[in-house]
Amino acid sequence: MESQGIRTNVICQVGLIVSDIEKSIEAYSQVFNMPKPDIVITDPPEVAKTKYKGKPTDARAKLAFFDMGQVSLELIEPVGGPSTWRDFLEEHGEGVHHIAFRIKGTEQVVAFLEGKGIDVVQQGHYTGGMYTYLSSEPVLGTILELLENFDRDA
Amino acid sequence: MESQGIRTNVICQVGLIVSDIEKSIEAYSQVFNMPKPDIVITDPPEVAKTKYKGKPTDARAKLAFFDMGQVSLELIEPVGGPSTWRDFLEEHGEGVHHIAFRIKGTEQVVAFLEGKGIDVVQQGHYTGGMYTYLSSEPVLGTILELLENFDRDA
Repeated sequence: MESQGIRTNVICQVGLIVSDIEKSIEAYSQVFNMPKPDIVITDPPEVAKTKYKGKPTDARAKLAFFDMGQVSLELIEPVGGPSTWRDFLEEHGEGVHHIAFRIKGTEQVVAFLEGKGIDVVQQGHYTGGMYTYLSSEPVLGTILELLENFDRDA
Repeated sequence: MESQGIRTNVICQVGLIVSDIEKSIEAYSQVFNMPKPDIVITDPPEVAKTKYKGKPTDARAKLAFFDMGQVSLELIEPVGGPSTWRDFLEEHGEGVHHIAFRIKGTEQVVAFLEGKGIDVVQQGHYTGGMYTYLSSEPVLGTILELLENFDRDA
């Protein structure tokens, strides 16, 4: 049976790692003349069940989202333990960390990507869904994120 | 008179610097099950009138575009002389170089951004329009690109 790949090519989010989310929110809201979004903190480890490189981590992040048409710009300030967010900030400084796609069937999509040499680097849950970051930089030049909402209509 | 900023917040393009565009096109077309786009080479310096850090440069780039919904993913392989593309590749390796916005009135938008401490780093022309890259990393964490088409209806 031929795999159909990730079955979407619609970027839904661009994720940007920042070192000071309050400062970045202020800058974006000024430059784009947009209202300041609230800051959300990712769920604690026992709820988010975050795994980084296969191991549980107490990593969290402060997040803020700006609607930019089809795409949501996600600002991410890493807090807590080891994560792809923290690694990126330490290795690259601020910058675009990932492009995200809304998918169904994380397990099958991950299996397809593993067949292309692209492995899971971090996974976790949020209310109503889960995210998966993939170590796709050597193949695609950037990190992919898969977002799967569990409600039937998403 | 109050400036209205850049007067759009719709991301139209995500630009990714790559070191081997043929290899990246192959990878994206496989992962996303998309047809391979043609490679376009930016116009020669006498046509593109490219300026980098205020000086003319013979920089060019190989480009390829994947439609990803509202957003076009632009793959960029730097060729030729000094450019923001080449600097990014040397400093960061492959990765997302910029987010782009389609605007009108480059001069006014640039003046607005200069007021926010964001300066022009590279400008050039393409058939029917011009692009402007801004040194927005210290303020926004990534490079902004302004795209202005000169035809009346764009």
